[in-house]
Amino acid sequence: MERTCGNGTLRAADEGRKVTLIGWVSKRRNLGSLVFIDLRDRSGIVQVTFDETMAEKVKDVRNEYILQVKGTVAKRGQANPKLATGEIEVMAEEVTIVNRAETAPINISDDTDTNEDTRLKYRYLDLRRPVLQNNMILRHKVCMIARRVLDEKGFIEVETPILARSTPEGARDYLVPSRIYNGRFWALPQSPQIYKQLLMIAGMEKYFQIARCFRDEDLRADRQPEFTQIDIEMSFGDEDTIFATVEDLMKAIFKETVNFELEDHFVRIPYADCIRRFGSDKPDLRFGNEIQDLSDLFKDTEFQVFRNCLDNGGVISALHFENAADKYSRKGLDKLQEFVKHGFKAKALAYLKMEKGELTGSVAKPLSIDEKNAVIERLGLKDNDLVLIIADNMKIANAGLGALRVRIAKELGLIDESVYKFLWVTDFPMFEWSEEENRWVAAHHPFTAVKEEDVDKLFSDPEHVSSRAYDLVLNGYELLSGSIRIHDQDLQEKVFEAIGLTMEKAKERFGFFLDAFRYGTPPHGGVGIGLERLVMVLAGTDNIRDVVAFPTTNSSLDLMSESPNTVDQAQLDILGIEISNKDKE
Amino acid sequence: MERTCGNGTLRAADEGRKVTLIGWVSKRRNLGSLVFIDLRDRSGIVQVTFDETMAEKVKDVRNEYILQVKGTVAKRGQANPKLATGEIEVMAEEVTIVNRAETAPINISDDTDTNEDTRLKYRYLDLRRPVLQNNMILRHKVCMIARRVLDEKGFIEVETPILARSTPEGARDYLVPSRIYNGRFWALPQSPQIYKQLLMIAGMEKYFQIARCFRDEDLRADRQPEFTQIDIEMSFGDEDTIFATVEDLMKAIFKETVNFELEDHFVRIPYADCIRRFGSDKPDLRFGNEIQDLSDLFKDTEFQVFRNCLDNGGVISALHFENAADKYSRKGLDKLQEFVKHGFKAKALAYLKMEKGELTGSVAKPLSIDEKNAVIERLGLKDNDLVLIIADNMKIANAGLGALRVRIAKELGLIDESVYKFLWVTDFPMFEWSEEENRWVAAHHPFTAVKEEDVDKLFSDPEHVSSRAYDLVLNGYELLSGSIRIHDQDLQEKVFEAIGLTMEKAKERFGFFLDAFRYGTPPHGGVGIGLERLVMVLAGTDNIRDVVAFPTTNSSLDLMSESPNTVDQAQLDILGIEISNKDKE
Repeated sequence: MERTCGNGTLRAADEGRKVTLIGWVSKRRNLGSLVFIDLRDRSGIVQVTFDETMAEKVKDVRNEYILQVKGTVAKRGQANPKLATGEIEVMAEEVTIVNRAETAPINISDDTDTNEDTRLKYRYLDLRRPVLQNNMILRHKVCMIARRVLDEKGFIEVETPILARSTPEGARDYLVPSRIYNGRFWALPQSPQIYKQLLMIAGMEKYFQIARCFRDEDLRADRQPEFTQIDIEMSFGDEDTIFATVEDLMKAIFKETVNFELEDHFVRIPYADCIRRFGSDKPDLRFGNEIQDLSDLFKDTEFQVFRNCLDNGGVISALHFENAADKYSRKGLDKLQEFVKHGFKAKALAYLKMEKGELTGSVAKPLSIDEKNAVIERLGLKDNDLVLIIADNMKIANAGLGALRVRIAKELGLIDESVYKFLWVTDFPMFEWSEEENRWVAAHHPFTAVKEEDVDKLFSDPEHVSSRAYDLVLNGYELLSGSIRIHDQDLQEKVFEAIGLTMEKAKERFGFFLDAFRYGTPPHGGVGIGLERLVMVLAGTDNIRDVVAFPTTNSSLDLMSESPNTVDQAQLDILGIEISNKDKE
Repeated sequence: MERTCGNGTLRAADEGRKVTLIGWVSKRRNLGSLVFIDLRDRSGIVQVTFDETMAEKVKDVRNEYILQVKGTVAKRGQANPKLATGEIEVMAEEVTIVNRAETAPINISDDTDTNEDTRLKYRYLDLRRPVLQNNMILRHKVCMIARRVLDEKGFIEVETPILARSTPEGARDYLVPSRIYNGRFWALPQSPQIYKQLLMIAGMEKYFQIARCFRDEDLRADRQPEFTQIDIEMSFGDEDTIFATVEDLMKAIFKETVNFELEDHFVRIPYADCIRRFGSDKPDLRFGNEIQDLSDLFKDTEFQVFRNCLDNGGVISALHFENAADKYSRKGLDKLQEFVKHGFKAKALAYLKMEKGELTGSVAKPLSIDEKNAVIERLGLKDNDLVLIIADNMKIANAGLGALRVRIAKELGLIDESVYKFLWVTDFPMFEWSEEENRWVAAHHPFTAVKEEDVDKLFSDPEHVSSRAYDLVLNGYELLSGSIRIHDQDLQEKVFEAIGLTMEKAKERFGFFLDAFRYGTPPHGGVGIGLERLVMVLAGTDNIRDVVAFPTTNSSLDLMSESPNTVDQAQLDILGIEISNKDKE
């Protein structure tokens, strides 16, 4: 079954050309004795015109039939600017019906009329939509570029097992019962972390893998039970080497897909500075409006609310938006206050507006003239500027203002949607306190290297131990995380001790991995890049299902194949398991 | 931690160059006050020489320590022809011990001294062996080439789910219990077959994926529970289009990895001819010695054994080996006879030898002179030629002689190990009789297209219905199998009926897939190429574990991570399953 070109590739310059096309009927219209059919293939859509003599042959043809058409390219009387092929049409001379189609349960040429569940059930039809096809092609391109760039840099793709050993964070593992060894299980990997570190110990030096990962968690809107990671690990490098590798990778991807030139090196900001300036460890740098700590201006204040806050070790922090005072009425400001009260447990949100050279607003009255002047000077306030203030403990103030910063920037259209702002966040804390477990736990994972100058604080002051973990943030999204790993057995044992793990327990959990450290482990580190997130940004979508060929719902159901599903008792018997707790349905 | 070049890249031309190297100590020798260390990295091994002043610094250094060395490249007094860097050595000027190592439990520089189980337990050390590292690099290269070639041809890589629906051949599925829907299960896919057909229905036109597949079977030596397939599917093509795609792919892979030029188009032989000529559907074409059916020469024979065989509908078939009579003594021929008797249920193996212009051997006496002359003439026998004969039913004769053909070719060294002979085997039977199920079953799978001229035999003569399934065979190995698929719903239903599957059952098993056929399914077909098998051939190894980074044993155990392993009761409770049949151990 031959064709001479893709439907979407024909242009005015092809006028007079004899072509053979194949495709799906996207739309048909009758106009008197003429029939017009929009014929769709992966490359796009072209209008095919059947004159009086040909119309008879397509009289039964309906949407989604597959046709093979021979004809001649002709200029259209009136161009259709919505189609890339809009300047031409193809005058049909022969037509073959390749296959018929029943009426499709979803509308393929319009993506607004059917609910997503129906589209997921008929995913194979939904995938005929050009926008989804192009997303799949984009995803393919991103992977091709990633592999090419990494290959050129001497990285080798190694496939690591999907039938793996259950890991310490076992509750999130998908388990696979063993038929041969009843009562034992494999686990699907949450990431190839341990395997890629073993590959470094094995002397592979530079590894990558576009790797399938699995996490059994209650899904959020942007998660899927399985996802893909551009997984990279290298030996003998440090942050500089790893960052340079990722920067080159991103430069190539953004240049070759969305034709955007990234800067040579991305900004780096330590975690603590990020929190202080943006109230977030994934700040969107496409706009400014950083958090300003004004506490020092109020150190002698008599305004009781601020006074109490400072006396209790809190801060008085503010966001400043130029020329925005008139955008927020009293009602609008109340909404913002609700937002920080409910979302971030802030006690209140104060505001000041600069109006005709003077400050008005909720705290204009109780503040002294000197204090108000100090605020005007510090922030460089001009008429119609808006200042939002939280007086609270530092954590709440930063979190609340950080979220407010993003919300208001969106509301005011401060974000330049045409740019991509990358940022390395470095020096993450090594530990975080787990209320649940009543102990320090590893913030990243327990194989993360500790900053050398903080090693002696491991036991005396774990809260202030920084790690060599880092994130790459793009336009406010966490695109990857990674770290330099521990390669020294002694340090590894100390870190386990610091998180309350005895060597005995550590050995039980990942003994074979600890063993491996004894035989000449190179310094190493790496990253795992979220492929879906990256493609989502490039495709300009917030829905992860737009970049996954066969996704599940948010509640982990595949509506198309109706899985997970029940299986025969015989299969369970072979595996030596039985169902103890049947789903109520 | 910088280095200026890979250890294995240094050559005589680098004499005098200042270099910084990093690597593992592969071997150390003391010679008087000098110390010689073979330093290994992924690129290879180089000898580093520590003179009197430097030797002290490496006095405690042992095998598998990691060193960073600065020094100058010097010509060796006597070259070591075994090393690519053998003409030079590096005179150490500075050395840093990057990490220490305990004595390794396996010998890394010699692959003969430890049993495979120990090597698998310490896989991360075994992978330091240059031969395994090179195999991983080869595998990476094959995948890079495959992706490049397919991308250039307009194929798009699409990732299909690993958490999938359990398939009809469910007994071989690995199951994954669902935490959210207790009592229901995902299955790991045996191949992306259904998904890739759905992608054709979705209009992707040309799909590929280097896809992980899973099969829970009792392992043979060349199988692993998970394996990888270069999976390809395309719409609107036929055998010619698909074969051309695969041929171009193979040509690029063989040229760029082992520098071997394959012919432009591979030979095609229908299945029935293959069996007749080679007694196998995966014949090794690197040598001739095809099976000769001599039945017609004996149609009037009075030799009772042959007479009975022909009267019972059997055949008298032979293999002819030139100049091989003296290679097989009576004892040797007895062994061959045992081989076909035990392995293939042949009643006997007769032989003839050409000696001084006359036929001798086990059936020389009972045959008439005319019959013997006819054999001499038919086979063109010359002195010292050997003829092996099986008189039996055709299936046994073909199978026995087919296996004998390979065995003797190996014993006599008839196989040119330097060539790669590809062969398309086409027109496989659509059905095979299952004694177990007492019905016809699909030989390939039930979605395989039927040869058009055989459609009307579906019910009247299923045994002689040919399918549009094909295999690609390389040097006697099945490298891929594939088929043109059914794209017509009516035909699909007929095939189900022919294998005794009611539409009701068919719908229950793959209803969503059958549904999809109703909405405009393009003609399509494809292949799945066994990646491990391909890399094994290129690497020249018979052991699949040589081309898999983290393999299991033949009994599906990962000796390194000791998995599958037991898990906490709490994990099982969450999944709503319990163990009914604990492994005795």
